[in-house]
Amino acid sequence: MKRVKVIGAGGYGGVGIVELLLKHPEVEVRTLVAATETGMKMSELYPHLEGFCDHPDASEPADIVFFSTPDGVGMVQARAELEKGAKVIDYSGDFRFRTEADYADYATRIGKDPVHKSPDLLPQSVYGVPEIDRGSVTPEASIVGNPGCFAVGVILGLTPAAAGDLVEDGSIICDCKTAVSGAGKKPNASFHYPARYDNMNAYRLTGHQHVVEVEKALSKTAGKPVAVTFTTQVVPACRGILSSLYGELKPGIDYKAVLEAYRSYHAENRFVRIYDRQAVIGTSQVRGSNFCNLLVDVDERTNKLRVISHIDNLMKGQAGSALQNMNLLCGFPEATGLDRPGQYP
Amino acid sequence: MKRVKVIGAGGYGGVGIVELLLKHPEVEVRTLVAATETGMKMSELYPHLEGFCDHPDASEPADIVFFSTPDGVGMVQARAELEKGAKVIDYSGDFRFRTEADYADYATRIGKDPVHKSPDLLPQSVYGVPEIDRGSVTPEASIVGNPGCFAVGVILGLTPAAAGDLVEDGSIICDCKTAVSGAGKKPNASFHYPARYDNMNAYRLTGHQHVVEVEKALSKTAGKPVAVTFTTQVVPACRGILSSLYGELKPGIDYKAVLEAYRSYHAENRFVRIYDRQAVIGTSQVRGSNFCNLLVDVDERTNKLRVISHIDNLMKGQAGSALQNMNLLCGFPEATGLDRPGQYP
Amino acid sequence: MKRVKVIGAGGYGGVGIVELLLKHPEVEVRTLVAATETGMKMSELYPHLEGFCDHPDASEPADIVFFSTPDGVGMVQARAELEKGAKVIDYSGDFRFRTEADYADYATRIGKDPVHKSPDLLPQSVYGVPEIDRGSVTPEASIVGNPGCFAVGVILGLTPAAAGDLVEDGSIICDCKTAVSGAGKKPNASFHYPARYDNMNAYRLTGHQHVVEVEKALSKTAGKPVAVTFTTQVVPACRGILSSLYGELKPGIDYKAVLEAYRSYHAENRFVRIYDRQAVIGTSQVRGSNFCNLLVDVDERTNKLRVISHIDNLMKGQAGSALQNMNLLCGFPEATGLDRPGQYP
Amino acid sequence: MKRVKVIGAGGYGGVGIVELLLKHPEVEVRTLVAATETGMKMSELYPHLEGFCDHPDASEPADIVFFSTPDGVGMVQARAELEKGAKVIDYSGDFRFRTEADYADYATRIGKDPVHKSPDLLPQSVYGVPEIDRGSVTPEASIVGNPGCFAVGVILGLTPAAAGDLVEDGSIICDCKTAVSGAGKKPNASFHYPARYDNMNAYRLTGHQHVVEVEKALSKTAGKPVAVTFTTQVVPACRGILSSLYGELKPGIDYKAVLEAYRSYHAENRFVRIYDRQAVIGTSQVRGSNFCNLLVDVDERTNKLRVISHIDNLMKGQAGSALQNMNLLCGFPEATGLDRPGQYP
Repeated sequence: MKRVKVIGAGGYGGVGIVELLLKHPEVEVRTLVAATETGMKMSELYPHLEGFCDHPDASEPADIVFFSTPDGVGMVQARAELEKGAKVIDYSGDFRFRTEADYADYATRIGKDPVHKSPDLLPQSVYGVPEIDRGSVTPEASIVGNPGCFAVGVILGLTPAAAGDLVEDGSIICDCKTAVSGAGKKPNASFHYPARYDNMNAYRLTGHQHVVEVEKALSKTAGKPVAVTFTTQVVPACRGILSSLYGELKPGIDYKAVLEAYRSYHAENRFVRIYDRQAVIGTSQVRGSNFCNLLVDVDERTNKLRVISHIDNLMKGQAGSALQNMNLLCGFPEATGLDRPGQYP
Repeated sequence: MKRVKVIGAGGYGGVGIVELLLKHPEVEVRTLVAATETGMKMSELYPHLEGFCDHPDASEPADIVFFSTPDGVGMVQARAELEKGAKVIDYSGDFRFRTEADYADYATRIGKDPVHKSPDLLPQSVYGVPEIDRGSVTPEASIVGNPGCFAVGVILGLTPAAAGDLVEDGSIICDCKTAVSGAGKKPNASFHYPARYDNMNAYRLTGHQHVVEVEKALSKTAGKPVAVTFTTQVVPACRGILSSLYGELKPGIDYKAVLEAYRSYHAENRFVRIYDRQAVIGTSQVRGSNFCNLLVDVDERTNKLRVISHIDNLMKGQAGSALQNMNLLCGFPEATGLDRPGQYP
Repeated sequence: MKRVKVIGAGGYGGVGIVELLLKHPEVEVRTLVAATETGMKMSELYPHLEGFCDHPDASEPADIVFFSTPDGVGMVQARAELEKGAKVIDYSGDFRFRTEADYADYATRIGKDPVHKSPDLLPQSVYGVPEIDRGSVTPEASIVGNPGCFAVGVILGLTPAAAGDLVEDGSIICDCKTAVSGAGKKPNASFHYPARYDNMNAYRLTGHQHVVEVEKALSKTAGKPVAVTFTTQVVPACRGILSSLYGELKPGIDYKAVLEAYRSYHAENRFVRIYDRQAVIGTSQVRGSNFCNLLVDVDERTNKLRVISHIDNLMKGQAGSALQNMNLLCGFPEATGLDRPGQYP
Repeated sequence: MKRVKVIGAGGYGGVGIVELLLKHPEVEVRTLVAATETGMKMSELYPHLEGFCDHPDASEPADIVFFSTPDGVGMVQARAELEKGAKVIDYSGDFRFRTEADYADYATRIGKDPVHKSPDLLPQSVYGVPEIDRGSVTPEASIVGNPGCFAVGVILGLTPAAAGDLVEDGSIICDCKTAVSGAGKKPNASFHYPARYDNMNAYRLTGHQHVVEVEKALSKTAGKPVAVTFTTQVVPACRGILSSLYGELKPGIDYKAVLEAYRSYHAENRFVRIYDRQAVIGTSQVRGSNFCNLLVDVDERTNKLRVISHIDNLMKGQAGSALQNMNLLCGFPEATGLDRPGQYP
């Protein structure tokens, strides 16, 4: 049994991984650290866990440490955990970029200090969209930068196009709609129930932080720089991200070729399901699960690729991918503890 | 491994039990029968099950048959299943009453034919709110009448009062609010999204069918006839029932005594959690789980017992209790396949 | 044209009265004061008002001043407005009670300082559920204590019973469900969208402040002390209060007599609509309007009065009644600026 | 006073225009025809109208007839109304195209009979997005084809770009999200509350009917053929359409030029509000009103125009524009009966 510690357990990302860990056959939750509610039992913070997670044993050390914390925490605290022999999975942007220059680019674009606090750790970190990066998220790795929620759905939805060179440079548009839980647990005016009720809006048009990792991932796959237009929107729902992904098709690429490229690319990915354009699916079909459902389409009239990507932002977009990364880090079968449908409705 | 058949798999009650059975270690789903969508795969009806329930083996026979069907189906079709050696768990009112007279009373009150179609089966049937009726839901039983969703929350919330003779005769009021999924999968004008949006209403004031089983269960516990005022309401939510339960306290009964009576009565019930009146809980803490959370209170100014009962109508109120009844029928540990928290948020 | 000033314009109660005042033919909005967002235009606080309320003229004096402020503001600031010749309508508990003793009782029960800051103003204040109190809310009055949102729906729903002596002493139960906007504009953990999603809960079981005014109003009508059991609950909706009101019927009172008593009592009240128990109505039929719809029922099996009261908490429950009180204070026809249906759906 | 008749009053489009007409100072509602609920009072169909619209006088003739009916009704029934001297405003596609060939193109693309039933009426019909087409929607016109809900938001959001030749041919993408009321009042499986809850999905990828009128309108403005990629999506909300509109900017066009082009184009349009990219707005700011709010942006990194268009689908997207067209047809000031903010929240 691997011993697990969760730092930042009090947030949605934290409780999500705790729920998954409680059902995972190969691990035990040993230590929970909630940043702002020190000293409370997990079941006081989250009463639905009463009887399941009342007195986590705080004994050290841990084999796996999840940092479900905002930017800036993991880069400072990870070293101590690594030195005690743990592997680290970090939810923030701290370990999504392997060089100081890449990190500085990211940090600058989101208005943060471009200097990474632990640059010497970057070379041993790997970025982890599990389906794309399982070649590097292995038992040899020690730090995984868990991807951003928008990034997971977009990268899974566009990598087959990048790998197959299906669309024209500069033509990709990612129109992404998230449910509110993606913004986390902290109340604010925009997510106050009456303010969010019947309300859709676009936000951070000047640059959402996830675009950086999307572009780096696609560039790596394509073998050339890829820039995307990236629009983030919030809709009045709790869980789910639907991303509409567009690109100008290259000459000679038709619907049949596109569909085949997608089916082929994701053939071995248990958690990616490919649908043709006749399918009637929505985010409720992935709610509560680790699946990414991709509806693949071509608009022949305008010669556009159109892929609709559906994920649960808290599962495939966060805790689910984190657990999948843990499985890869530990050498467990990749789907352990995740191979379940959600509840419907 | 017990072999299971679900008749009426296409409804919410059916998909709920299928989801639970897929995770249960002691059973395998063998046959699914969807009343109105004959010939479709379960994963066509419910795309979230793709990869989990695509080609159920239709081979007979089954050891356990769930009838997640409306009133009138089980009483006709159960016999054939019983004769093939199966045990039957029926979701409807067909087997909630053990005598022809009781059934006729129920059927008359809801405007149905008072003549039961298989009266000879009634004596071998048992009513099953698992926590209350586990003395009769045993491997010796062959038919279980699974309780109505409102009934589960109300019976668990009032049985300690009935058992302890805490309240005056004729004073009980059950003010019950359900989310929309309780009305099932079939679209209608009242549950069309725009019509339900921001809309609460009371309905069936002239008599909801679940009041009959509530009164019979409480009368049995109290050892005398108990009548209750029963108000059903719908609120704009998907899952959950919150029932506010009131009664005039008998002389000498105070808050402390009430709280103690509730804690004592449910002490051994894994899926019932008792909270005092300082607790801050809502239906989201039971969402997706088999728990019933009871907040126990007394209004000293008016001398009233006040209990707030919280369940997930599709779990503890339906499929969860059905699976729990299956465990009791099969002699499995009662919590098998159910001992999990839901997902939050 | 009467000149109007709104203090506390930044809250939901404030924006509600501003929206109504903008359409009222006999008044002009002259001054808006937002407590916490000083110096912002109303259309910056509430962008839907852009083009309608951009530069309110701040010139004094005003003929009518609305205090859409929390407890404790009006009792301090009203004097200055009165001295300048204005009439005052206060949304809080500050002027809902006409004697120091009554105020002290209220304040004590909700844990506030029992000493009123301007006791000399209390005798000139009147409580104002317009339909019940239009005998005292007249051009001669100078201060109106606008009722609490729960109180409006409950008082309109129970006053006919109190006036007609229909129910037994000590038997009244008010089970009230509110939408979230009743809690105001300030974000908090309980009303954060993901936390409120699919979540119903009871709160302040130890005593909601509105029960005091309900009991005083009913006692005044009944001519004897009336105590009620009062349960407040929140459901995941934006606007609306549904209150289920119960009482043990006195001997000889049947459904026909009850329905007649309600129809008779409210015969002249434009904004109260009486429905019999066959009616299919919900809060969406009053959403956005000043109406209170009362569904009147009797449960003959248990001899209980059951009235379902529906209001929009921000209209009839707050700004609508406030405008109606303004009409009464100014001698305008009572329905001026209010006689409209809401938008559906 | 103009006398008005509404055919199809029982749908959301019908009740929307009735609500507006009841407040309009220059018209009276004389005749309501509900297709499927013959003989019911409007207030039985829509109880929120009780006391406002109980006994519409069925006397003929009418000066204005609204057909809030599906495709195929107006083209058959309009002639009789025109012959009695009425002007006609039709909500469907029947009169959105002025030639038989254009209609056939539309009908073919949506799989309908390409033969118009009253081709001789087409030349006297005009298409009416009021802000764009007020040159042709005049007292001389007799038939107006009211625009589709998606089309209104998209056309208002892209016409300045088409007029100013701001974007490259073939590069326009319209990513449109609608609330559920856009699908009308008739219940179906996709809009059943539990099915829609927390569910977003794209639909009709193979071709939504509104794309045809969008392309024709933009082509007319641009003076050359314009084709657009058009994606329709549904989100769990009641009212509102948010459309994200993209195009590849032509060389030399920057953010400042774009913003100026939009401000200039819509300078005289009372119901269009232009916001720069710093604005924080959503659909709730237009809910219940006739406004279209346009947030204008440029993504400099990828050289894309990005406009976020916000409307209330039942107001600006349907009944509001229909009333505005009526004002234009009758020579009333264009904003009569419409110049109001919605209610918030």
